[in-house]
Amino acid sequence: MKSILFSLLLFCATFTLRAENGHQLWLRPHPAAPVTVVSSGKNSALLATAKSELQQGWQGRAGATVKLTLKKDKSIKYDGFRLSPQGVEAATEAGLLYGVYELLRRQQTGQPLTEVISNPSYEHRVLNHWDNPDGSVERGYAGKSIFWRQDSSFVVTGRDKALWQQYARANASVGINGAVLNNVNASPMILSADYLGRAKAIADVLRPYGVKVYLAVKFSSPALLGGLKTSDPLDPAVIAWWKARTREVYRQIPDFGGFLVKASSEGQPGPQDFGRTHADGANLLADAVRPYGGLVMWRAFVYSPNDKDRAKQAYNEFVPLDGKFRDNVIIQVKNGPIDFQPREPFSPLFGALKKTAVMPEFQITQEYLGQAIDLVFLAPMWAECLRSDTYQAGPGSTVARCTDGSVYPQKHSAMAGVSNVGLDTNWTGHDFAQANWYAFGRLAWNNTLASEQIADEWLRLTFDNSAPPTANQPAADFNAGFLTPVKQLMLASREAAVDYSMPLGLHHIMSATHGHYGPGPWWAPPGTRADWTPPYYHQAAANGVGFDRTSTGSNAVSQYHEPLAGQLNNPATCPDEYLLWFHHLPWDFKMKSGRTLWDELALHYDHGVQQVRQFQRTWDAARPYVDAERFALVQNKLRTQSGNAVIWKDAGLLYFQQFSHLPIPAEIEPPMHTLEQLIANDAPPLRRPAGQP
Amino acid sequence: MKSILFSLLLFCATFTLRAENGHQLWLRPHPAAPVTVVSSGKNSALLATAKSELQQGWQGRAGATVKLTLKKDKSIKYDGFRLSPQGVEAATEAGLLYGVYELLRRQQTGQPLTEVISNPSYEHRVLNHWDNPDGSVERGYAGKSIFWRQDSSFVVTGRDKALWQQYARANASVGINGAVLNNVNASPMILSADYLGRAKAIADVLRPYGVKVYLAVKFSSPALLGGLKTSDPLDPAVIAWWKARTREVYRQIPDFGGFLVKASSEGQPGPQDFGRTHADGANLLADAVRPYGGLVMWRAFVYSPNDKDRAKQAYNEFVPLDGKFRDNVIIQVKNGPIDFQPREPFSPLFGALKKTAVMPEFQITQEYLGQAIDLVFLAPMWAECLRSDTYQAGPGSTVARCTDGSVYPQKHSAMAGVSNVGLDTNWTGHDFAQANWYAFGRLAWNNTLASEQIADEWLRLTFDNSAPPTANQPAADFNAGFLTPVKQLMLASREAAVDYSMPLGLHHIMSATHGHYGPGPWWAPPGTRADWTPPYYHQAAANGVGFDRTSTGSNAVSQYHEPLAGQLNNPATCPDEYLLWFHHLPWDFKMKSGRTLWDELALHYDHGVQQVRQFQRTWDAARPYVDAERFALVQNKLRTQSGNAVIWKDAGLLYFQQFSHLPIPAEIEPPMHTLEQLIANDAPPLRRPAGQP
Repeated sequence: MKSILFSLLLFCATFTLRAENGHQLWLRPHPAAPVTVVSSGKNSALLATAKSELQQGWQGRAGATVKLTLKKDKSIKYDGFRLSPQGVEAATEAGLLYGVYELLRRQQTGQPLTEVISNPSYEHRVLNHWDNPDGSVERGYAGKSIFWRQDSSFVVTGRDKALWQQYARANASVGINGAVLNNVNASPMILSADYLGRAKAIADVLRPYGVKVYLAVKFSSPALLGGLKTSDPLDPAVIAWWKARTREVYRQIPDFGGFLVKASSEGQPGPQDFGRTHADGANLLADAVRPYGGLVMWRAFVYSPNDKDRAKQAYNEFVPLDGKFRDNVIIQVKNGPIDFQPREPFSPLFGALKKTAVMPEFQITQEYLGQAIDLVFLAPMWAECLRSDTYQAGPGSTVARCTDGSVYPQKHSAMAGVSNVGLDTNWTGHDFAQANWYAFGRLAWNNTLASEQIADEWLRLTFDNSAPPTANQPAADFNAGFLTPVKQLMLASREAAVDYSMPLGLHHIMSATHGHYGPGPWWAPPGTRADWTPPYYHQAAANGVGFDRTSTGSNAVSQYHEPLAGQLNNPATCPDEYLLWFHHLPWDFKMKSGRTLWDELALHYDHGVQQVRQFQRTWDAARPYVDAERFALVQNKLRTQSGNAVIWKDAGLLYFQQFSHLPIPAEIEPPMHTLEQLIANDAPPLRRPAGQP
Repeated sequence: MKSILFSLLLFCATFTLRAENGHQLWLRPHPAAPVTVVSSGKNSALLATAKSELQQGWQGRAGATVKLTLKKDKSIKYDGFRLSPQGVEAATEAGLLYGVYELLRRQQTGQPLTEVISNPSYEHRVLNHWDNPDGSVERGYAGKSIFWRQDSSFVVTGRDKALWQQYARANASVGINGAVLNNVNASPMILSADYLGRAKAIADVLRPYGVKVYLAVKFSSPALLGGLKTSDPLDPAVIAWWKARTREVYRQIPDFGGFLVKASSEGQPGPQDFGRTHADGANLLADAVRPYGGLVMWRAFVYSPNDKDRAKQAYNEFVPLDGKFRDNVIIQVKNGPIDFQPREPFSPLFGALKKTAVMPEFQITQEYLGQAIDLVFLAPMWAECLRSDTYQAGPGSTVARCTDGSVYPQKHSAMAGVSNVGLDTNWTGHDFAQANWYAFGRLAWNNTLASEQIADEWLRLTFDNSAPPTANQPAADFNAGFLTPVKQLMLASREAAVDYSMPLGLHHIMSATHGHYGPGPWWAPPGTRADWTPPYYHQAAANGVGFDRTSTGSNAVSQYHEPLAGQLNNPATCPDEYLLWFHHLPWDFKMKSGRTLWDELALHYDHGVQQVRQFQRTWDAARPYVDAERFALVQNKLRTQSGNAVIWKDAGLLYFQQFSHLPIPAEIEPPMHTLEQLIANDAPPLRRPAGQP
């Protein structure tokens, strides 16, 4: 307890004393002009937040009057709003708050304030925190949980509340309106009185920002926590237990959002333990929360071996259940069919579930993308998924439109992002990882937003120290010296990460020893289930490399709709990005570029490394525009990323060369590790900045 | 004992079964043509060796007759020889043997066999083995000692003798005629009966190859081994003890070469412990060996703090003693005034001792040059020293001429090289480190030999698998595909190592933690004597970097003769290579290139790294010409060297940047480590190929 208190003290001292340590995120204070706020409706907490934000952040004409008007309007959906030079109109108080944030963002980033209507793509825009009751965070790279404490004393301090409020404000400012407070690998204790009490305290702080609280629950809670003999979803005692427990949750948190469930997945208990289906399990909980308007988000991340190809398993399990779920159940589907790899084709479940609400799950925390070391801006990756055409209801059936209600008449819609937030002063470990939190919110609000715009906004808000640009005084220096090159860096960063870690559709070739950080194409300890090991995925052999998912292979392509299935099935038409995801090809396969597969692979690896070096140069040149503290942190992380990119490249090339027996092209940078070293260390002593775990 | 026997067994098995594991050195067997050898003189062991070598290696006309003629000749010096199409003439049997090796070398490398007279530059061409009685080797990177065994059983096996014979043959083939069998940090036990017995056994094996045995002795042996109360060199009992002990040595080894002594140096006992001088100490031993024609090689590697600049101390101690040494004493002087750094100016003792025999000591084992990892061909470094003009007896008084008897009438002349040989199958750990053993011998024989010729010979002998080239059939492929590029690699390798580890004359900035392997510019643990720490040498500060040895600094330049002293004293005329050795200059000092010192430093560091990458490409392209085993070993070592070069560069630049506060030039490769990491690990987990200590 002492050490946590001390850390907190230090932490608070740090972010109080130093303005540019990253704690302020994209909400750094600027001198505000006086403004008069006029509002209709009752004076609620949400409205008070909206007014206070306007008054603290107004960058417009001094003495102006802004109206916040609560009003039904057919063109306004959910918590959408209409923005005009006069003020904000919305159907809900949350809508007014989002309108205020949009207004302030436009002022700060120098965008024109014309009349605009903005509606969220998804009704629920939810962060999933993989925070454990002991304060640790699964796949967390930014310190301990902001919600839970190791000592379980459950005392809510003033510092806790201040931090949760800052967190809620950050979420609201980008439209996030929900937070699952605990890990999907859930403890049954989360529904016990002590934890519920703390969840209520959190909900009370989040409420004035329009952020609802959700909990992840363990399916076997009736037995584990309730002492029942079973957790069978059709058992009357189990049904009753869930109803009673849910009633207690809503007694404490009347606007509780609902449950998130990982069941019958990776060793977690679930309905299949009792011979029931996912639908049986999800509906049990859906019925329990229905009286209160609650939701059940049921994860489709399952891969019991119903097929030799893990990529097919979730589809095989869920498609037969389409239409069997209650309308307050949403199936939460990871963007790709495997597991948050730097690049995956979209999950074939998108669009295939036609009578069931489906929500995309993205991973904001960079489990497979360099964690809090590598600078990787994820908006382009998520946009790539959202814009993918499933063809399931004809051309234009993008993943975005299949999940936001445009294609299928689903009652509820949502998007989830696995949070990257922790107790680190700058919240996310890497200053640029804040951009992924920001981007998730912005894309959940508008699933067609351009990555370039998101990066532009975030950079201006997060780094610009100059006065707001105006038509007469454009911030030329900042734009040319910082914004343009650093934005370019961000936009190129994800492709660089793909290149140095999983070029041409290779996937799941990371080290398991180091928590999915660094390369491990050789990793396959005896006795490990095959589909947890890289050789299962890359299938490297003398005759070639890649997973054959064509119609003559695992036939995973058949889970996609035509014409996509046919396109993917043919190596001549399959995009290079997914080539080795769907095909096992000889090392001398002739690529579209005219090069052999082997040479192309080598060039991609090397390009990734060279790109990171360019990012370093870009950042070094941006030094005059950045405060010293954030500059140094990012500079150091880029250095480590640069070294680790080389490790990825060397490991990949030297490992696969054992099978290809082909020389590394002379035009790329020769390896600076030996395969023996890389394997012996699996991965080698990876270079993390001092202080990193 | 078991493990050593087993290793030896394995070792012998290895080099018997596989031809190209490097064990054959530059003496790989080729099919020989029949030849008749006719010789004058008595049929001694040396002559038998010469005949047998001729018969085993003859590549000339089948059935030819070759004459070996023992004959006095004014134009033949020491063990020199006259080579003609008829055969070899020499004044000694060793001379005949050297002539035979030269003849065979010319046949194998396709050089014309015109009449030639070849005399050795130095009378004594001696390897110093820093081998300890327990079998370990100080600064040895190629396994344990070939002479001594940990278990001290002193049993001489047939395998021992076979190995010693191969060793002797390799030495003789390049003209090396002496071996100091044990470390200069000597144990008194080396003069005990058991060790002397083993030394005698070694001498017996080496004798037929003309290689004399020497021993390094501890100055306090009379007290430690003899039980005397003192080791005072003027004490009659001490004098008598040394005479008696020496008599015993010569009883066992009648042609024993003499003693090598490290005294009053780095904690070793010496005459100064008794208030006597180095001359008193050396003369004591010189008188003991004089009746037998023995020599004393007395090391000048001393740096007791008689001056604030360590570089000046040996000169200060020895110059006043000039003329006070017996004529069978040779002062052994390291090439530079500090300690075998990748680049040093020559020691000012060369040429300054005018009435005392002086011999250069070079380090073949790569203590500061990447040990058995980095490919560094040392001939250019040694040639640089030998060709340096001391001006001590007018222009042309090169180090070579000041030590080989050309300038001063010294009675004896010698050159020493600290050996890189160990029990590794390929003798030297790195296949290319064999070239340094070879080069040492060749330069000791001819101290004006071009590095290019040495590399050419060694590469042809060590790697060429084709038939001997003839005028009609030049080995075009091997020359163009292997010889030319790899020779270029070798010749560039030392400058690359200087660039990535100690550019512009920076020196002694290596890690002490890792045994002088890798960077440590920050290394200065509290309580360490200052002149063992890098900051003492680089003097980096806000006002600049480098050791001021000018006339307004330590005035070390004054130990050099004009016009050199004046040239070194002025930064405008001091060569860039030695700039920071002699000058402390501001970071923005304008270099001859027009760049600032800081930028120039960065470019040198980076150039070193890029050079190693080029070496990798060169070696990769040479694959068709090399057997798989040696190709892979060298390829892997180059990879590790490449990574370590980056570590050197990053450590140097990031460390010095703390003082320069200048940006790293954008045109070089950005760092891929952080300074914190590098310091925390001092140096980072250095990447050695698997199996390396």
